[in-house]
Amino acid sequence: MEFAHSPRTQDLIKRVRQFMRERIAPVEAEVLQAQRAAAHGGDWTRWQIAPAVETLKAEARAAGLWNLFLPDAELGAGLSNVEYAPLAEEMGRSFLAPEIFNCNAPDTGNMEVLWKYGSDEQKARWLTPLLNGEIRSAFCMTEPDVASSDATNMQATAVLDGDEVVINGKKWWSTGIGHPNCRFVIFMGLSDPEANRHQQHSMVLVPLDAPGVTIQRMLPVFSEYDEPYGHGEVHFDNVRVPKSNLIKGIGKGFEIAQGRLGPGRIHHCMRCIGAAERALELLIERGLTRVAFGKPLLQLGGNRERIADLRIAIDQARLLTLFAAWKVDKIGVHAALTEISAIKVVAPNVLEQVVSEAIQIHGGAGLSNDFPLTALYATARVLRLADGPDAVHRGMIARVELGKFGSLVKQAGVRA
Amino acid sequence: MEFAHSPRTQDLIKRVRQFMRERIAPVEAEVLQAQRAAAHGGDWTRWQIAPAVETLKAEARAAGLWNLFLPDAELGAGLSNVEYAPLAEEMGRSFLAPEIFNCNAPDTGNMEVLWKYGSDEQKARWLTPLLNGEIRSAFCMTEPDVASSDATNMQATAVLDGDEVVINGKKWWSTGIGHPNCRFVIFMGLSDPEANRHQQHSMVLVPLDAPGVTIQRMLPVFSEYDEPYGHGEVHFDNVRVPKSNLIKGIGKGFEIAQGRLGPGRIHHCMRCIGAAERALELLIERGLTRVAFGKPLLQLGGNRERIADLRIAIDQARLLTLFAAWKVDKIGVHAALTEISAIKVVAPNVLEQVVSEAIQIHGGAGLSNDFPLTALYATARVLRLADGPDAVHRGMIARVELGKFGSLVKQAGVRA
Amino acid sequence: MEFAHSPRTQDLIKRVRQFMRERIAPVEAEVLQAQRAAAHGGDWTRWQIAPAVETLKAEARAAGLWNLFLPDAELGAGLSNVEYAPLAEEMGRSFLAPEIFNCNAPDTGNMEVLWKYGSDEQKARWLTPLLNGEIRSAFCMTEPDVASSDATNMQATAVLDGDEVVINGKKWWSTGIGHPNCRFVIFMGLSDPEANRHQQHSMVLVPLDAPGVTIQRMLPVFSEYDEPYGHGEVHFDNVRVPKSNLIKGIGKGFEIAQGRLGPGRIHHCMRCIGAAERALELLIERGLTRVAFGKPLLQLGGNRERIADLRIAIDQARLLTLFAAWKVDKIGVHAALTEISAIKVVAPNVLEQVVSEAIQIHGGAGLSNDFPLTALYATARVLRLADGPDAVHRGMIARVELGKFGSLVKQAGVRA
Amino acid sequence: MEFAHSPRTQDLIKRVRQFMRERIAPVEAEVLQAQRAAAHGGDWTRWQIAPAVETLKAEARAAGLWNLFLPDAELGAGLSNVEYAPLAEEMGRSFLAPEIFNCNAPDTGNMEVLWKYGSDEQKARWLTPLLNGEIRSAFCMTEPDVASSDATNMQATAVLDGDEVVINGKKWWSTGIGHPNCRFVIFMGLSDPEANRHQQHSMVLVPLDAPGVTIQRMLPVFSEYDEPYGHGEVHFDNVRVPKSNLIKGIGKGFEIAQGRLGPGRIHHCMRCIGAAERALELLIERGLTRVAFGKPLLQLGGNRERIADLRIAIDQARLLTLFAAWKVDKIGVHAALTEISAIKVVAPNVLEQVVSEAIQIHGGAGLSNDFPLTALYATARVLRLADGPDAVHRGMIARVELGKFGSLVKQAGVRA
Repeated sequence: MEFAHSPRTQDLIKRVRQFMRERIAPVEAEVLQAQRAAAHGGDWTRWQIAPAVETLKAEARAAGLWNLFLPDAELGAGLSNVEYAPLAEEMGRSFLAPEIFNCNAPDTGNMEVLWKYGSDEQKARWLTPLLNGEIRSAFCMTEPDVASSDATNMQATAVLDGDEVVINGKKWWSTGIGHPNCRFVIFMGLSDPEANRHQQHSMVLVPLDAPGVTIQRMLPVFSEYDEPYGHGEVHFDNVRVPKSNLIKGIGKGFEIAQGRLGPGRIHHCMRCIGAAERALELLIERGLTRVAFGKPLLQLGGNRERIADLRIAIDQARLLTLFAAWKVDKIGVHAALTEISAIKVVAPNVLEQVVSEAIQIHGGAGLSNDFPLTALYATARVLRLADGPDAVHRGMIARVELGKFGSLVKQAGVRA
Repeated sequence: MEFAHSPRTQDLIKRVRQFMRERIAPVEAEVLQAQRAAAHGGDWTRWQIAPAVETLKAEARAAGLWNLFLPDAELGAGLSNVEYAPLAEEMGRSFLAPEIFNCNAPDTGNMEVLWKYGSDEQKARWLTPLLNGEIRSAFCMTEPDVASSDATNMQATAVLDGDEVVINGKKWWSTGIGHPNCRFVIFMGLSDPEANRHQQHSMVLVPLDAPGVTIQRMLPVFSEYDEPYGHGEVHFDNVRVPKSNLIKGIGKGFEIAQGRLGPGRIHHCMRCIGAAERALELLIERGLTRVAFGKPLLQLGGNRERIADLRIAIDQARLLTLFAAWKVDKIGVHAALTEISAIKVVAPNVLEQVVSEAIQIHGGAGLSNDFPLTALYATARVLRLADGPDAVHRGMIARVELGKFGSLVKQAGVRA
Repeated sequence: MEFAHSPRTQDLIKRVRQFMRERIAPVEAEVLQAQRAAAHGGDWTRWQIAPAVETLKAEARAAGLWNLFLPDAELGAGLSNVEYAPLAEEMGRSFLAPEIFNCNAPDTGNMEVLWKYGSDEQKARWLTPLLNGEIRSAFCMTEPDVASSDATNMQATAVLDGDEVVINGKKWWSTGIGHPNCRFVIFMGLSDPEANRHQQHSMVLVPLDAPGVTIQRMLPVFSEYDEPYGHGEVHFDNVRVPKSNLIKGIGKGFEIAQGRLGPGRIHHCMRCIGAAERALELLIERGLTRVAFGKPLLQLGGNRERIADLRIAIDQARLLTLFAAWKVDKIGVHAALTEISAIKVVAPNVLEQVVSEAIQIHGGAGLSNDFPLTALYATARVLRLADGPDAVHRGMIARVELGKFGSLVKQAGVRA
Repeated sequence: MEFAHSPRTQDLIKRVRQFMRERIAPVEAEVLQAQRAAAHGGDWTRWQIAPAVETLKAEARAAGLWNLFLPDAELGAGLSNVEYAPLAEEMGRSFLAPEIFNCNAPDTGNMEVLWKYGSDEQKARWLTPLLNGEIRSAFCMTEPDVASSDATNMQATAVLDGDEVVINGKKWWSTGIGHPNCRFVIFMGLSDPEANRHQQHSMVLVPLDAPGVTIQRMLPVFSEYDEPYGHGEVHFDNVRVPKSNLIKGIGKGFEIAQGRLGPGRIHHCMRCIGAAERALELLIERGLTRVAFGKPLLQLGGNRERIADLRIAIDQARLLTLFAAWKVDKIGVHAALTEISAIKVVAPNVLEQVVSEAIQIHGGAGLSNDFPLTALYATARVLRLADGPDAVHRGMIARVELGKFGSLVKQAGVRA
């Protein structure tokens, strides 16, 4: 057992930290405020990217801090999950950093999918500009009219018709679709309800400007529109794209989705941990500098014990996420189902818990936009639902656990 | 012991419910949406009240459902706290109802203060139009630069200068100050730092248009501006009002604040309970009508147990709040310190807990404005801080509890 | 609403308290230590009652503090549930008090059953000596081989054979069966598996010395044998009793069990609350008198906040239990299903929580027999299982709650 | 980062598991029952070791599974903490295993102390027979009359008087002192109250048969005497031992205690995790094989979600403990203060949580001695207090955390 990061990772951590401290931190508040001010009540057609963002992206790229998430050594940094994870944690401390380093969801997941499963043509058209940070993309899976935590509920369709795929349905929580540079989505739909359970769905590349694609609205999360990324409700009405836009072919949607899940969840969870560290810092700074009843707030009541509990929770979440990353690297996603579901429950909940305590210590200020706490809270809540709500992941963990008791489970007639 | 409400209360509950169901519910969503749409990024100068509101106020008044909170039998309904409490619960189910019934905080507290301590002149000028629902008011106590949970931190001043009171300082979280009809505030400030600890502060009536009063900004709560009420940051710069604007005289601020606290907290907590009931209904309705893995969501995992826990929590919070109300009625605020602090901790936390579970059952929809859940969540969080954060109330309860161990406490040299 | 106890109840509370303080408290530790010392590794044949107990019983009876639980005004005190509840709370502070006042479970439940449903002959033979405190009794329902939280699992039988009832089966957790004065049990068994679901079971009076009745062993609870009451495993092997020993007739078991549940659970829960108050006192006393790092323990870390949380939890549990009692009195057990299940979850868990914190403050001493904390902990745990584990009661509450959503529940095809 | 155990560790895990499954498991229940039956109400003078134990010890030694805890490659297995940790986890699944493998606390800690700090004479006389499993030992630190979580409270004395050390004071919770083979204790006492804070105490080797040493009683833990190890209260009355019995010299007690803490806590916590795994297995086995309301218990209510939460908690606790072990190995105890305190809070609490849920699933059976659940619960509670209660460790973690905010902490005048 060796808990130290590799020298290369250590070096990258140091450089990412330095870049974030020296280049991003000084402008972050200003950029976010400008973006928030330009929310225009959810009217994404008017959203803009702050000029500082493009400058910083260029700098990050020049500094070799670009596409660090991609396991490909040439196109990306060639890092394993366990090597990239601590970098994702660092980026999670900032709302801006992921985009600056070209490591922003859902583009990261989309790039991985294209890298792994895309045709040469698809790579040339979609992957390259994504890797260059020239365009953005979205992922269309969740649907407004059904409980999407159960994939078999999916109503949207992607049906072959000659040389074309015909796409219909409603999707929402399509994150990033409000970005001015967003050019396409990966759409998942039902292709053949008669096929084997794992071969019914397909993933298709759909340009945002294809006829029949309509962004109905942007969805606020705790009243924030998350501009300029945005979470959109998108309707697809007889959208037709060439068959060559299918990723890996008809009926491969489920297989691709599975491959996408592991790394994506690890990234999300590590960013949560970075965010939790930041919230804890804010808590402590406020608690040391505000005085009530003659003492700094942290010296009152159970506040010191609270800090201890939060430190323990964060450290445990980090270790579990790194372990999940290692397991995915070494044995694969299927051997790490418990760990991937476990971190999906743990990390956002830890973030929620830390932020919640930080808000209490900040008093009214914590509820306002003077601090990033409510935005961090919203982040936590989104992640308690995105990619499956807590309860679904608990169900998955229980299933694996019971699976260890083969004969008893069989006797009991229980699903495991 | 008798847990049944009096016949009169039962009748009022029935009538309030009916009015809310028949008159308010049908227009509520529309009114709220209109108000939200008109938030104008916190620019309260453009806030408006929906016309439906004034119509409904007139109807409520005509129906005898007006000023129910006021213990005065002529000016109000003459109800005790324990009689009004269940009506506050009903109103808490709606964001609109309290204003319709002229039972909206902080006007209720301000009306009580004026009714109890105001001079005839003050009553004529401020109380009467408040009782008529013609004007609104705010309360200026919390300050941005200090931990206001400790009243001795207060920096704002209200100093006698001849026949005038000179007012200086910064206040924030002045709720209701964004209302187009808001005309005055009750300002609390330090008058004499040399006086006895409980006679240093004064409360003064300050017209909003007095020279030197500036609303700096409206504070968002989880990114919502709570229009058209709003939570303002207000600066007072050498504001001068006649000495006759002092409530009950110089140095009486603390005494008045004490009297205000009990009923105000009971109202807040009962509204929380009503809000929690509504959130639980939303949870169950969604959980019964959405299906995943072949079952309604409520049949999955621990969801039924969650409903049980929420039901238990709500019922306990209600009983404790009613008990606190009864104790305030029968023995007075000072005998009910534990109960008042206890409900201040319990009720908003129960609301937070119910809403949090309801969001999980709603999935992404719960995070958006399609449901009132995030607004209810924000309500809960505001109330975990307003009138003292949870931790301060826990401290108060512990103090009373230790006070029962007189000689041991003395030996131990502990504050109780 | 009126939260004050009636003058009569207030007087009884005062007298019970005084008796407990002056007569029971001084000898309690000694009596318990003597009983514990005489546990003889679970060999109940050697268990003895301390002489002080009979003396105190006589005194309590003389003082009019006898059979207070029984609603019958002549045989008992004629108190309603809500009137008796606070007396049960007082008794719950002591392991000895319930027996002294002849209010000990399961005799109280058995006496109620005989009083309500017993024939004159049964009353003369069993009820009168129980009311006199001359004999003790047990209740045989739970079975070792099946999950007894589901009554339909019951395997033991009580079958009519001419003028006799033939009894077979294994029972355990038959509390009180180790008492030297225990003379009979109420046995519940299956009489007719073909009958209507609620008419399959019967309750039968079985003398402990009937041929075929064997106490197999006493069951320890957290390694304590709860001498001289004991929890027994009892086997019934073709035990024959006259048909007249049936309570209310064949097939009436379920009906009687229902009637027994409400008051029994209220008594248990109120005793829990008394026990929790005692544990909180012990916590505070220890916390004020032990010093670490220069301060009384209670001044360290989050201990004061813990006290507040415990006070809140206890007060809420008490109010909910009193409300359940009132509802049972006024509207009946069936209208109070939620409340009865809710207190069954809440009260033992609150006791567990208070005791757990008290143990932490006591350090190692809290784990030993120098303090009653581990015994109180065991009490809490027993009550989280007896009469149905927490999870079953949560299930019941959810069922009632969903029942309020009739048409939705029907559409969803959900059990409610 | 590498989460896999070294090949050597993997081999040892396999062999320990096999030995436990094949040799220990078959006799364990019988041995424990025999020991429990021979508790004799705490009369340790009659305690005996089951013959099977010595046989198994010899077998374990022959199999090379002996003294695995000792980092010395000749005297022990030469394993680092991170290598030994998973073996401790395996042993924690059994109450018997630690003694069989000669890895039983507090002998392990005592052996480490003697190995690191003992003189040749001390090693020959005490260490060698301990390593051979011929004798047992105890550790005397905690005192009945003061809060021993604060070491400066210590009242017992170990004072130089010529060539002798004179020992006085009362100690309790001296674990292992009831073992028939216990021959000596390591006693910690105050030698010089005037010395530097970290040089006031000394550790002395005291033969159990030295004049003036009296075992007053054995302390039960949740009414169990933990025979044949026992937790004793021991009085030292002018006990005189030669100066050469001082470990490392006068005033070195604190230094030695510090060195002892890290590994000892890691061992305890890993055993907790093994115990938790066992409790979870029992929970699942029971939950799959008992049926209520037509389903295996695990299919009811929130039970599957509970299993998931327990799995997550156990896995997180394990990773944190392994990380602490690694940090102690690589950077030393002082760099791992947060982690050592964190696992001391986490691991016993996780065990408590798992056991508590397991008891609920077992129903009444879980409270009895038919299952090891109450004994596992007692283990958890002991460890939430031994070596410092949870609250003290939380305080330590907070102190380290605040220490990272150097200048703010200084400004705030806060201890960190």
